[in-house]
Amino acid sequence: MSIIPALQWRYATKKMNGEKVSQDKVNSILEAARLAPTSSGLQPFEMIVITNQALKEKIKALAFNQTQLTDCSHLVIFAAWNYYDINRINYYFDYYEKERDLPKGFSDNYKNNVTKQLTSMSLEHQFEHASRQVYIALGMALTEAGALEVDSIPMEGFINHEVDKLLNLEEKGLKSVVILPIGYRDAENDWQAELKKVRKTATDMITCID
Amino acid sequence: MSIIPALQWRYATKKMNGEKVSQDKVNSILEAARLAPTSSGLQPFEMIVITNQALKEKIKALAFNQTQLTDCSHLVIFAAWNYYDINRINYYFDYYEKERDLPKGFSDNYKNNVTKQLTSMSLEHQFEHASRQVYIALGMALTEAGALEVDSIPMEGFINHEVDKLLNLEEKGLKSVVILPIGYRDAENDWQAELKKVRKTATDMITCID
Repeated sequence: MSIIPALQWRYATKKMNGEKVSQDKVNSILEAARLAPTSSGLQPFEMIVITNQALKEKIKALAFNQTQLTDCSHLVIFAAWNYYDINRINYYFDYYEKERDLPKGFSDNYKNNVTKQLTSMSLEHQFEHASRQVYIALGMALTEAGALEVDSIPMEGFINHEVDKLLNLEEKGLKSVVILPIGYRDAENDWQAELKKVRKTATDMITCID
Repeated sequence: MSIIPALQWRYATKKMNGEKVSQDKVNSILEAARLAPTSSGLQPFEMIVITNQALKEKIKALAFNQTQLTDCSHLVIFAAWNYYDINRINYYFDYYEKERDLPKGFSDNYKNNVTKQLTSMSLEHQFEHASRQVYIALGMALTEAGALEVDSIPMEGFINHEVDKLLNLEEKGLKSVVILPIGYRDAENDWQAELKKVRKTATDMITCID
C-alpha cells in the first residue's frame, strides 16, 4: 500500500456542495487523528466535531466567511492543551499503565522526566509544542480523508480566541489550533478542483548526504 | 483505501537492525512529505537525508545517543525556514505561476497579503508557524513508512542548534525541527515491538456538537 495516490487526489477544497459524509468515513478520519503519534504519547489535544448548522454559521463569521465552513458535512476543530498541566499528564500515565497492565507507578521516572522537561518551557512554548503534535494528527486526518475520497481543507485563518470563547474551550484547558471542514467538493464551482497541484521539486526540497 | 491499518502497524521503533531500506521506498516516504499541504502552499521546509555513517554517529552524539540514529537505514532531518523571508516567498510564487501557466504577477495580490500576514509575526513565531507545517509533512511521511511496512521513529530530543551547526543549516536559512530515522525494527531486541499501542479513547478525545 502507498498513500501517494491519496495525496495526489486530495486538494484544499475551496467550494463544497453540502453533501453529507457517512458516519463511517467521518469516524475513520477521526480515528486516523486519534492514532497519530505524539510527543511522549501524551496526545495533548482534543477534537470538536460540529454538524450543527447554526454553530457552523457562527464559526464561519469568525473565519473570513469561508463558505466551506457551512457547506461542509462535518467541521472538526483541533484544539491543543493550553499548557502541559500535571493533572493531564498524570491522567495519561495512569491510563498508559492500565492499558499495558503495568503496576501503578511503573512509569513514574519517565513521567517525572517528561513533566520536568515540558513544564520547564514557557506557557506559550508549551502550547506551541502541543500545537505541533496537532499537526501530525492533522496530516493523518487529511490523508485518511483523501484515501476515502472525502474532501477537506485545513484552515488556520480564523479568530482563535473568539472560537475558543464560542466553544468554551478555555474552561476545558484548550485553545483552537486548526479547523478542518470535511465534505464533498462542488467541482463545477471550485476553480481549484481541476488545477495542477503545485509542489516544489524534490531537488528544491531534498539534500542527500551519502 | 484506508490508512488505519498502516497506523495500527507502525510504532515508535526503539531498536533498529541496520538493514537498508530500498531507494524506492525511501523516495516514496520523502514524496509523501513533499506532497503535504502547507500554509499558503509555501512548503517552508527542507529535508536532509543522511546515509553517511560517520555523520549519523555525530548526530547520535547530539541526540542522547539513541541507537536508531546509527542503526537506521536513512536519517531524515526536517528543517524549517528560520523565518518567512521575502525572497523565498517570491521564489515560491514565481514557481507557482510558472507551474500553472499564469502570467507573471498574477498572484501578486495574494502574495502580498500572505507576506504581510506572515512577516507581521515575530521571527520566533514565524519559525513556529513554519515548524507546524513540518509536522503535517512528518505525519504523512510516518504514514507512508507504515503503509510500506518500513519502520521509523520521530525524534524531537536532540540539541537543535548543534545539529544546525553540523549541517550548516543556518547558512541555508534553516533550523532543524524533527529527526526521522527510517529503517527496520530489531524485533527481538525492541521491547516495544510487541506491546499494545496506547491511545486515549475516542470518548476522551472527541466531542460532537450536533
